[in-house]
Amino acid sequence: MNYDALFSSVGQGLQQSAIRQMGTVAAQNPNLISLAPGYPDPGTFAWDAYLEITEALLTQRGRATLQYGPTQGHPPLVAACVDLLRERGIAATPQELLITTGSQQGLDLVARVLLDPGDVVLVELPSYTGAIAAFKNVQASLVGIPQQADGIDLEALDDTYRRLAHDGRRVKFLYLVPNFQNPTGLLVSLAKRRALLEWASRRDVLLVEDDPYGALYFEDTTTAAETRPIKADDTGQRVIYLTSFSKTLSPAFRTAIMVAPPALADRFEIGKQAADLCTSNFDQAIVLEAINRGVLARQLPLLRQHYQRNRTVMESALRASLGEAATWVTPRGGFFLWVSLPDAVDTHRMIARAVAQGVIYVAGGAFFVDGTGANTLRLSFSLATPEKIVEGVTRVAAAVKEELAALGAAALVGR
Amino acid sequence: MNYDALFSSVGQGLQQSAIRQMGTVAAQNPNLISLAPGYPDPGTFAWDAYLEITEALLTQRGRATLQYGPTQGHPPLVAACVDLLRERGIAATPQELLITTGSQQGLDLVARVLLDPGDVVLVELPSYTGAIAAFKNVQASLVGIPQQADGIDLEALDDTYRRLAHDGRRVKFLYLVPNFQNPTGLLVSLAKRRALLEWASRRDVLLVEDDPYGALYFEDTTTAAETRPIKADDTGQRVIYLTSFSKTLSPAFRTAIMVAPPALADRFEIGKQAADLCTSNFDQAIVLEAINRGVLARQLPLLRQHYQRNRTVMESALRASLGEAATWVTPRGGFFLWVSLPDAVDTHRMIARAVAQGVIYVAGGAFFVDGTGANTLRLSFSLATPEKIVEGVTRVAAAVKEELAALGAAALVGR
Repeated sequence: MNYDALFSSVGQGLQQSAIRQMGTVAAQNPNLISLAPGYPDPGTFAWDAYLEITEALLTQRGRATLQYGPTQGHPPLVAACVDLLRERGIAATPQELLITTGSQQGLDLVARVLLDPGDVVLVELPSYTGAIAAFKNVQASLVGIPQQADGIDLEALDDTYRRLAHDGRRVKFLYLVPNFQNPTGLLVSLAKRRALLEWASRRDVLLVEDDPYGALYFEDTTTAAETRPIKADDTGQRVIYLTSFSKTLSPAFRTAIMVAPPALADRFEIGKQAADLCTSNFDQAIVLEAINRGVLARQLPLLRQHYQRNRTVMESALRASLGEAATWVTPRGGFFLWVSLPDAVDTHRMIARAVAQGVIYVAGGAFFVDGTGANTLRLSFSLATPEKIVEGVTRVAAAVKEELAALGAAALVGR
Repeated sequence: MNYDALFSSVGQGLQQSAIRQMGTVAAQNPNLISLAPGYPDPGTFAWDAYLEITEALLTQRGRATLQYGPTQGHPPLVAACVDLLRERGIAATPQELLITTGSQQGLDLVARVLLDPGDVVLVELPSYTGAIAAFKNVQASLVGIPQQADGIDLEALDDTYRRLAHDGRRVKFLYLVPNFQNPTGLLVSLAKRRALLEWASRRDVLLVEDDPYGALYFEDTTTAAETRPIKADDTGQRVIYLTSFSKTLSPAFRTAIMVAPPALADRFEIGKQAADLCTSNFDQAIVLEAINRGVLARQLPLLRQHYQRNRTVMESALRASLGEAATWVTPRGGFFLWVSLPDAVDTHRMIARAVAQGVIYVAGGAFFVDGTGANTLRLSFSLATPEKIVEGVTRVAAAVKEELAALGAAALVGR
């Protein structure tokens, strides 16, 4: 049978995620140190609390606990999320909320409900590959906007918008990760957040604000106030906000929150019906109990310290082993440290050397929708132990030095 | 902001599920007896086993248990599913398997990876609304084929195919639920299964075989051999097979299996990456333990007896209260009893009477892609207690009698 002739244009265009590919490489080479995936450290999880919670849930045998649930979400969890969001400055009604099967599902719903083939989505350069994949799968046209140290370049943003509008192109939304972006770790300034909201209103586009890392700011440099979601000031109802429990409680609960203006939230809910009917009621009940019992609130300060320490370890190791050849911005939260190497280095090609050295990272090119970024790479400090982080960075440095030596003196011209 | 202008053509076309709508009605009226949703009875779940399993998992703290997992599925669960499928006659390699977030996700992936707008999908008349929604969401063209007591009408099937081919239309696949179909409860005969496979080969189309109920045959009339999946004889690799643990273990684990030829399975996996990254590792680990500890194997005979008894109760009540006005085929497995009423009755319009009587069902029209079936309804015997089933059927009968009285003598002409 000729299967190739059967695929839809979407099916033909599907592309393997660069991050997930690295996950496969890591699974096949258990001795590799992986600085690739943005996985939380299971050592930080509240295992004892989950043991108590599941014991209570499975002893009480609530009729909803192991049953199908409403597509919108387990109603008491929706109510609890309204309160959680209020603590982050977001005043949302339950009708504006949807519990999604991870934030990836939120991105997928945004794509399907809002994007026709050829519609333009503006994204940061670089941007999160999971979002890029979801938008590309519906054949949207992705246009990148450069970032500065405090976030997206507003002048370039409006220039791009005007150029596209002049060409008759329809910009549906700007997608951004303002808090400790995946992959760069950058934090968008509060001034820039306000400016983005004004811009969106002026140009009549939506903002899709993806915020999995906002609660994981590092207290040595950053306050909660600096992570205030754009959605918190969204008086014009033009922000779709996504956040998740995957980085704070566990990714295995596949429980995330989507907040959208009611007219959009209704459509996302109907889209979710056909996507997976509902998110697991059991997982949602665990998350609800973790909120109600104070587990989440107790976890957050511990997680901030934990990942801050890992970040410091990684940055020190990087400075010691690669300070001459690499540049980066110190992450003030989140899971990622973003490294730029001399222009001549191709980090995708360099992966073979890294694997030979016993380490993997994610080559930066996958995060750029404009084909640039070949000299960048993403290092994750979230999962490895401090010892492995130091050893892993040392191995990355060895691979870089080999690559530079192979390229010769010409390699440094681009710096 | 004008949100209407923002929707994609998919977003504009999204339609609320009739079944899920009834779920909302039921949630708002706790005194209603609901014979609407196809929910399993939580009283049948292996609560004690899940308590032991989650205790073991959360005490052992395996690194994978609460982590992100491979998109394809938790590898030991994939391996265990290969064995389970073999017991059902299906020889699949691990590469042909994908663990999905419920079978609804499998249907969604089939739709997105295989269907372009305008592609034709053949479905049974009536067919499962969740599949209809997934296929309609990608703007496929759904064409219905009548069913006989032993399954789809083969002559009508080929006539329809030829008519479509003559018109230059591309038929991508035939979707069917051979075991105790949702909504009719019908079982496709073994002879017809073989004929369907031959037909698919002759006409070079795929079969999408959805089998959530196959293990739930009723031993008073039916043997396991009669539920043999079409996929078991798929030497030509043209069947995509879906099955689920939602009806046997719990829908809250959101864990289902998709089996497809390798070239297709690869694409479905990449499609799933962007849909939700992975199904919950925690839920998959619970399902794996339920298989390994023999929980699933012990559950099945109990479930068969349980639902068979409910079916018998419902059928007796129906015969006693509505035997004059209704016709049905005795379900030999599954969750559903499908009722045909006199032609003049519109079961959608009749819902108001049913709610007034204190009962809900799903009006049959939603299951027909050709706009027929207004005089049919689906009763689910899976969730209500025997007492509630009897009372619920009595209330349905009262609603029907009211409706017939309102319609007058003319109502019986169509029988």
